[in-house]
Amino acid sequence: MAKPRNAFYAQSGGVTAVINASACGVIETARKHKDKIGKLYAGRNGIIGALTEDLIDTGKESKKDIAALRHTPGGAFGSCRYKLKGLDESRAEYERLIEVFKAHDIGYFFYNGGGDSADTCLKVSQISAQMGYPIQAIHVPKTVDNDLPITDCCPGFASAAKYIATSVREASLDVASMAKTSTKIFVLEVMGRHAGWIAAAGGLASDDRCELPIVILFPEITFDRAKFLARVDFMVKQYGYCSVVVSEGVKNAEGQFLSDQGVKDAFGHAQLGGVAPTVAGIIKEGLGYRYHWAVADYLQRAARHIAAAADVEQAYALGKAAVELAVSGNNAVMPTIVRLSDKPYRWEIGVAPLERVANVEKKMPRNFITRDGYGITEKGRAYLLPLIKGEDYPPYRKGLPEYVRLKNAAVPKKLDTEFQL
Amino acid sequence: MAKPRNAFYAQSGGVTAVINASACGVIETARKHKDKIGKLYAGRNGIIGALTEDLIDTGKESKKDIAALRHTPGGAFGSCRYKLKGLDESRAEYERLIEVFKAHDIGYFFYNGGGDSADTCLKVSQISAQMGYPIQAIHVPKTVDNDLPITDCCPGFASAAKYIATSVREASLDVASMAKTSTKIFVLEVMGRHAGWIAAAGGLASDDRCELPIVILFPEITFDRAKFLARVDFMVKQYGYCSVVVSEGVKNAEGQFLSDQGVKDAFGHAQLGGVAPTVAGIIKEGLGYRYHWAVADYLQRAARHIAAAADVEQAYALGKAAVELAVSGNNAVMPTIVRLSDKPYRWEIGVAPLERVANVEKKMPRNFITRDGYGITEKGRAYLLPLIKGEDYPPYRKGLPEYVRLKNAAVPKKLDTEFQL
Repeated sequence: MAKPRNAFYAQSGGVTAVINASACGVIETARKHKDKIGKLYAGRNGIIGALTEDLIDTGKESKKDIAALRHTPGGAFGSCRYKLKGLDESRAEYERLIEVFKAHDIGYFFYNGGGDSADTCLKVSQISAQMGYPIQAIHVPKTVDNDLPITDCCPGFASAAKYIATSVREASLDVASMAKTSTKIFVLEVMGRHAGWIAAAGGLASDDRCELPIVILFPEITFDRAKFLARVDFMVKQYGYCSVVVSEGVKNAEGQFLSDQGVKDAFGHAQLGGVAPTVAGIIKEGLGYRYHWAVADYLQRAARHIAAAADVEQAYALGKAAVELAVSGNNAVMPTIVRLSDKPYRWEIGVAPLERVANVEKKMPRNFITRDGYGITEKGRAYLLPLIKGEDYPPYRKGLPEYVRLKNAAVPKKLDTEFQL
Repeated sequence: MAKPRNAFYAQSGGVTAVINASACGVIETARKHKDKIGKLYAGRNGIIGALTEDLIDTGKESKKDIAALRHTPGGAFGSCRYKLKGLDESRAEYERLIEVFKAHDIGYFFYNGGGDSADTCLKVSQISAQMGYPIQAIHVPKTVDNDLPITDCCPGFASAAKYIATSVREASLDVASMAKTSTKIFVLEVMGRHAGWIAAAGGLASDDRCELPIVILFPEITFDRAKFLARVDFMVKQYGYCSVVVSEGVKNAEGQFLSDQGVKDAFGHAQLGGVAPTVAGIIKEGLGYRYHWAVADYLQRAARHIAAAADVEQAYALGKAAVELAVSGNNAVMPTIVRLSDKPYRWEIGVAPLERVANVEKKMPRNFITRDGYGITEKGRAYLLPLIKGEDYPPYRKGLPEYVRLKNAAVPKKLDTEFQL
């Protein structure tokens, strides 16, 4: 029997409430396949850890701490925004990867990320054929943006969605109470520069048992000031108040981000982010209503305290499946979520070839958005609802979620060469 | 035995995650005292409901729905920001109150609010003596600002504190993951225009088992740009990243709110709120670090999904105590929380005369803030920790907290006079 080779795992891009659950799935499953996988190293700060030979020995972590990753948000090994280009363009980087992989006998490459990362993972999978170093590369999907193709959903999205839907419901009840003499408008800015998946989740706050006036601004729909103001005014006239969920990616007819429309700070610099205050200002200017606004930012993607149960389960299952795909000889694939039914929600793990995943962005179907562009349809609701169902509370200690901090012990370097990023 | 008189209950000022738990305590307890209390009417939109004779008959609500108030955020009957002045200044309003109270035989006045409301409640309690209408007025404390005197804490605060502490911990783990190549600074803006109680709660995110670099900007401490930047830079050099919790009430040496320092919207208007982007801009300008910022706004005071168990219990207990104080003949008082010990956390209900509560603002002790002004001391921690301990999850339905919406049936008007607010 061949000597087991080591594995490398890295987290890439923006982290989520459940990316560590995938890490947990990868590590726990790798530990069950000692015959095929020797050590499992994690890259400190993602792929940068591989390039700089800054590896973490996950074998030094206790069983208990690895299990706790399942309920810990953020990226336990550090992530990075660092995109490798094609094999030809970035040859030095790929050669460095091979140098490090060879030095540590790494034969498996698990990459946990979104669209860009899937592309990097595909490139690494081609090293065997194109550069003669044998390696199997498996991508583990992750992104709050929910924009990877083929998979029904992406780990991280559903928990952000549950957080946003809950927050919109809670804040709407608050503004409803205040509307008579004070605030009539509540604006919440959510993530999603290219697709309105998270914004759509805000629409779930309102349902048959808890009807709330919600206006959603999707990046898919061009912002129309007059029409928007008319819609908000209608809601205020009807309900006395209105909640607006606005995606950071909303653009006007000229294709500019609304958030770029001239908000300047004390130094005269354009203010980054902040489409919420812009929209609140537009309402104040156009309708005169008092407003409050909030920007959820990292809170939405880190909110492990209100993670969706299925999201945690799927994140773990995809990490587990990645290792199983590797030990059974696969390369250049990504495990996916296949939805079998909405009610009851049933799903299973599928497999997609990475070349069909890399650089393909899944848009939100237009028929998830109501005709007027400000709400979600029954189709959208049917897609979203099963994802946010179920709670998976972390343990608490002294009133706070108890999240694990790993030791992250460095693997001794074997190379005497350095690599400039 | 005297015929039982009716009672009036109203919610006042900014609502919280647990003000309805107090309403629940008031209503359930009043229902147990049919011999003394006849109907319990709620003011629609607070005291305005009394002035406009817009009363809600809480007797039309089912036992189940009233019980569900315990886990429902916002103000179920509507609140308002409407301050009654002294008996002499606002004589017409007090005469109107008496007119409405007389028409509906209201003998008990329960007012659920903060400092301003305590003052109003005190004025109403004086109607008996000064204007000859017999009524007992009891104040039920509530405010996320935690600034009422005598009571150890105010319902609503601890749940906001738990939300902020949890959010800072979660977002800090997120930025820690991203810091190597991307965001190094996370800024969270929290409520507290006059006192830094909620900002202080951000400091709880870091403890012996989960050490995090957090810099707090308190309204109690004058903002010093150079010193602040040095502190943030130290944290980044030490940990690689830094979370900043900034109170909306932070002022500079000239006494200006930081949030008023010149952020203008597209129309050239000063931007309201938004000290988070201002502070993020100051860091970018001074240190060049990449940042993300969030503004929690209503989310922090509406976050019933992560309410503190003791907060819910106390909110209910204070509503219950208010009714018990009333039926045992008290007037012009407020039930309070008396802390008996920190470890284990034990408390009981006390009573404070309203004249010692009205118009007195409890500041945060200076010894809760570290000498450098950017953190909380062990004393501060000892005060805060017991408050946020314990979870009290709402029930969920279809993935979302199931909050009750009451029928809020109007009591038929008995007066043919209208009142102009």
